[in-house]
Amino acid sequence: MAEHYKITFEPMGVQAKAPAGTSIYEAAGIINIPLRADCGGKGLCGKCRVIVDPPHNLSALTESELGIFSPDEIKRSYRLACQAQIQGDVTITIPEQMADSREARGKTGLRGKYPFDPMVERIGLQKDELPEPKDGILADGASWVAERATRVAGHEVFIEDLGALRQLSRPEAYEGEITLVNHLKRGITAVIPGNKSRSLGLAVDVGTTTLAAYLCDFHTGEVIASSASVNPQRRYGEDVISRIAMTDNREDGLAILQQIVVEGINYLLGRCVEEVGASAEDIDEVTLVGNTTMEQIFIGFHPHGLGVWPYLPVLSSPRDLRAEEVGLNLNPGTNVYLFPVISGFVGGDTVGAILAEKPFLRDEMCLIVDIGTNGELVLGNRDGLWATSCATGPALEGAQISCGMRAVSGAIHKVELDSRTGGPTWSVLGDDENIPPVGICGSGLIDAIAVMRKMGVLLPNGRLKEGMPGVICDENGVGREYVLVP
Amino acid sequence: MAEHYKITFEPMGVQAKAPAGTSIYEAAGIINIPLRADCGGKGLCGKCRVIVDPPHNLSALTESELGIFSPDEIKRSYRLACQAQIQGDVTITIPEQMADSREARGKTGLRGKYPFDPMVERIGLQKDELPEPKDGILADGASWVAERATRVAGHEVFIEDLGALRQLSRPEAYEGEITLVNHLKRGITAVIPGNKSRSLGLAVDVGTTTLAAYLCDFHTGEVIASSASVNPQRRYGEDVISRIAMTDNREDGLAILQQIVVEGINYLLGRCVEEVGASAEDIDEVTLVGNTTMEQIFIGFHPHGLGVWPYLPVLSSPRDLRAEEVGLNLNPGTNVYLFPVISGFVGGDTVGAILAEKPFLRDEMCLIVDIGTNGELVLGNRDGLWATSCATGPALEGAQISCGMRAVSGAIHKVELDSRTGGPTWSVLGDDENIPPVGICGSGLIDAIAVMRKMGVLLPNGRLKEGMPGVICDENGVGREYVLVP
Repeated sequence: MAEHYKITFEPMGVQAKAPAGTSIYEAAGIINIPLRADCGGKGLCGKCRVIVDPPHNLSALTESELGIFSPDEIKRSYRLACQAQIQGDVTITIPEQMADSREARGKTGLRGKYPFDPMVERIGLQKDELPEPKDGILADGASWVAERATRVAGHEVFIEDLGALRQLSRPEAYEGEITLVNHLKRGITAVIPGNKSRSLGLAVDVGTTTLAAYLCDFHTGEVIASSASVNPQRRYGEDVISRIAMTDNREDGLAILQQIVVEGINYLLGRCVEEVGASAEDIDEVTLVGNTTMEQIFIGFHPHGLGVWPYLPVLSSPRDLRAEEVGLNLNPGTNVYLFPVISGFVGGDTVGAILAEKPFLRDEMCLIVDIGTNGELVLGNRDGLWATSCATGPALEGAQISCGMRAVSGAIHKVELDSRTGGPTWSVLGDDENIPPVGICGSGLIDAIAVMRKMGVLLPNGRLKEGMPGVICDENGVGREYVLVP
Repeated sequence: MAEHYKITFEPMGVQAKAPAGTSIYEAAGIINIPLRADCGGKGLCGKCRVIVDPPHNLSALTESELGIFSPDEIKRSYRLACQAQIQGDVTITIPEQMADSREARGKTGLRGKYPFDPMVERIGLQKDELPEPKDGILADGASWVAERATRVAGHEVFIEDLGALRQLSRPEAYEGEITLVNHLKRGITAVIPGNKSRSLGLAVDVGTTTLAAYLCDFHTGEVIASSASVNPQRRYGEDVISRIAMTDNREDGLAILQQIVVEGINYLLGRCVEEVGASAEDIDEVTLVGNTTMEQIFIGFHPHGLGVWPYLPVLSSPRDLRAEEVGLNLNPGTNVYLFPVISGFVGGDTVGAILAEKPFLRDEMCLIVDIGTNGELVLGNRDGLWATSCATGPALEGAQISCGMRAVSGAIHKVELDSRTGGPTWSVLGDDENIPPVGICGSGLIDAIAVMRKMGVLLPNGRLKEGMPGVICDENGVGREYVLVP
C-alpha cells in the first residue's frame, strides 16, 4: 500500500491524509473542501490554483502549469491542484478562500461618512502645450509639467517622484489630457493619461489574524467599500511571537511573510475597487495600521529586535512609503502612510484608536481596549495617556488556562448569573443542545470573571474568597481555583 | 531539404544560415564562433548560456535548462546553446563575449590618481550598547543608531533610507560591530555587519556602443580597476534613434533596454571588484554619465520625448538614485548620481567632459570634441559655453557619404599629403598590403579633409576649388565632388 502523507489546507487549518500520487484536488475532495475546476481537472482553466509548501514534496510542474503560471508565480510556489501530485507532507493554501473564512466577517461594517481632509489632490492638464523657452533655453519635461500644474492648481506644485517621472515620460502622456496626483508633501506621485477625476483613499488594518481594507471617496468622505480576509501569514504561526521566530529561523522568512501580506492587501484592494467599479489607479493614498510586528514585516523590516530585550521597534515615527517600495499594485509612486508606533508591542493600530477616540481632548479618564490576537490598553485623558499590551488570543484561549480553547464546538462561550440559584449557568457552542463542555473560550472567560465578581467569589483585589462554593483552597487554606463546571 | 533560417550572433553581428533542428551550438560552429561546452553539449555545465530573441523561434525548454536557469533567467530568454534547436530566424547574444569585443578595448586606460572629495564616509560602531531611556521612554533603533553615529563621526548623522533601515533591522546587525555608509546629503545609505573600512566609488560611462566602468579607492583617489564591454542594447540598433524607435514600437522595449544595460553594468562592476579582491558592498557611490537617451533609458524614463519635437529630456537636473531603484547589484540604498544633461542631445557625458577640462575657468577659447557613436562639441571659455551634437558614427561611416564604411578590412583609414607629388596618398586597413580600397572610414575622412585643405582643394568656406586636379564640376561649373582614389 502506498505511503500516506499529511496534507494541511489553509486558511482553514484542516488536515487530510492521502497516499502518494493523489492530486491536491483529490485530497481536498476527501475532506469536502470545494475547489473550482471549470475544465474538469484537465489543467486548462487555472481555477484550482493553490500555493504549496514545500514545493519539492509534489510532482514536477506539468506543461499546462508552465503555460498557465508566470515565472514569478512559479517562484512563489503556485500549482494547479488538479495537476500537482502529492509526494510528501505538504501545506496547501487556497488563495480564493482567504476572504471567505469566518474570522474575516464582522470587520467590514465601518460604512458611513467621516470628516476628511486628504493630503492629495488631482490636477487635470489639457493636451501638452509646447514649453516656452526661457533665456533661449527650453525647460525639461519635469519642470514644464510642474509649471503648468502650479498655474492650474493656484499653488506651488513640484514633481520628483521616480514613478511619476517614469509615467510622465511614456508616450501616452504625450497624446492628450493628463491627470496628476499631487501629494501636498511629496509632490506629484502619479501621472495618469486622460481626464480622471475620481480620487480614492484606502485604509488598511493589518491584524495578526485578519486583514481589513476600507475604500474612501476623497471627494465626499464616504467609506464606499470594504473587504476583509484572513492574514495569510497565519499559516506560519498564530501570534506575533511565532511569526518573529519564523523570520529568525528561516533565511527567507521575512521575505515570505512580507510578500504574502502584501499579496493579501492587493487582493483586498482589488475587491474593494471592483465593488465600486473603480480601478487601482484611482487610489491616491493608502494609510496602514498594525501592531508593531505587523507594520515592520509589511515595510520589510526584520522583526528580530522585537523578540529580544529591550524590544525596540526599528522606527517609531510615521513613514511615507511609495507603493512600489512594498509591492502594492497601485501607481508606483502612490503614497502609503504607515502609522507611527508607540513601542515594540503597542503599534499603529493603537495610535489609530487614540486618534479616533481622542482621549487626549477629554477631561474624564478614558480606557481604550483593543482585543485582538494581541490586546492593547490605553488609559488617560488630556493630562496624559498610558498604553500597554498583552497577548490576548493565546491568553484567553490557551496559555495559563488549563481548559482554554478557541470558540468552536464544545466551548463554554457564555456564563450568566442564575438569579434563582445565585450560582453560575453556562452555554456551550455547538449545534447539539446537550453537547458537554470541553473547555472555555475568551468570551466565556470574561463572562465568568464578571459573574464571579457579582457572586462575590472573586474579590476586588483579584483573590478568590475562601469558603465560597466552588472555591478550592491549597494546603495553606488560600483560595487557588474555582470550579465553574463540576 | 529542411528550411534554412538566419542566425545572427551578437555582439559580433555575424550571421549564419542553418537548417531547422540545428542546435545553436552547432550553428555557432558553422561560422567558427567558439562557445564553451565543458560537459560536451549534454546540457549539464551551463557554460554555453546565451540570450535568444525571439524565444519562440527555438525548441521548447528542456529539463536540463529548467534545472539550470532561474525563473528570472527563463523570463529573460536565456537558453543553453547545446539544448535549444533552431525553428526560425533568431538573434543569439553571447553574454560572455560582451567584454571581449574590439570596440571595448581602449576604454580602460584611465588609471592614475585624481583629486578626490567623496560625498560618502564610513563610520564604524562597536557592538550595540543598549539605548538610554529619555524621559523614561526608549528610543527606536533608527534614532539610537543615528545618535551613536553622530557621536563617533563628530557631526550630525541621520538614517532615513529604506534599504539601510532594512539592513539595520536584520539579526546580523545585532551580533557585533557594524559599519555605516553615510552620504553627506542622503544620510546613512547602508548598514554592513562587521568592521569594513574599504570604501570604493564606481564611475560608469554608458555609451551608445560601449559601456565602461572605473573603480576608484575613496581613501587614496586612485583608479584601481576598470572594465569595458559592448553596450548590450546594440543588438536593438546601432544609434540612439533606432533605440528610441524600438521603445516606441514594442510595449516591453524600454523595460528590455533598461534591464540589459543594467545587467551590463552589473557585469562590469563585478569584474572590477573581482580584479582588486573587493566586493560589491564596498562600493559606496556610483556616478553615471551617458548621452541623454542612454541616461533616460538607464533610469527607466521612456525616451519617446527625445524622438519628437522639441526633443525635451524628462529631467535635465542631476538625480540621486538608490541602487535598487535601477537594479544595480549593490547595497540597495547606495547612491547612484546621474549626471545632469544639457539638452535632449547633449548629455551627461558632455557635462563630465566640461567638468574635467574646465573651459569655464579659461580665458582662451576652447573646443571640446567627443567623437563617439554620437558626437558632441563644446566651444567657449569663462564668458560662456556653447554645446551641440550630431550623429558621428553614421555620419562618418555611412549616412550622406557614398563610400563611407566602418573601420574594417578595405577601408581607407589614413590620408596623407605626398610632399613629392603634392597630391594625396592613402592607406587601406587589412593584412594584405595590396588590398584595394573599397570605401573610407571616419579617421580617413577627417584626414582627407585636412589634406584637401592643405592642398588648397577645399576652400576655407567649405567649397571645392574648381580647376584643381580631382575636382569635378557640375553643369554650371561649380565644384561638387573630389576624387580621392581615381
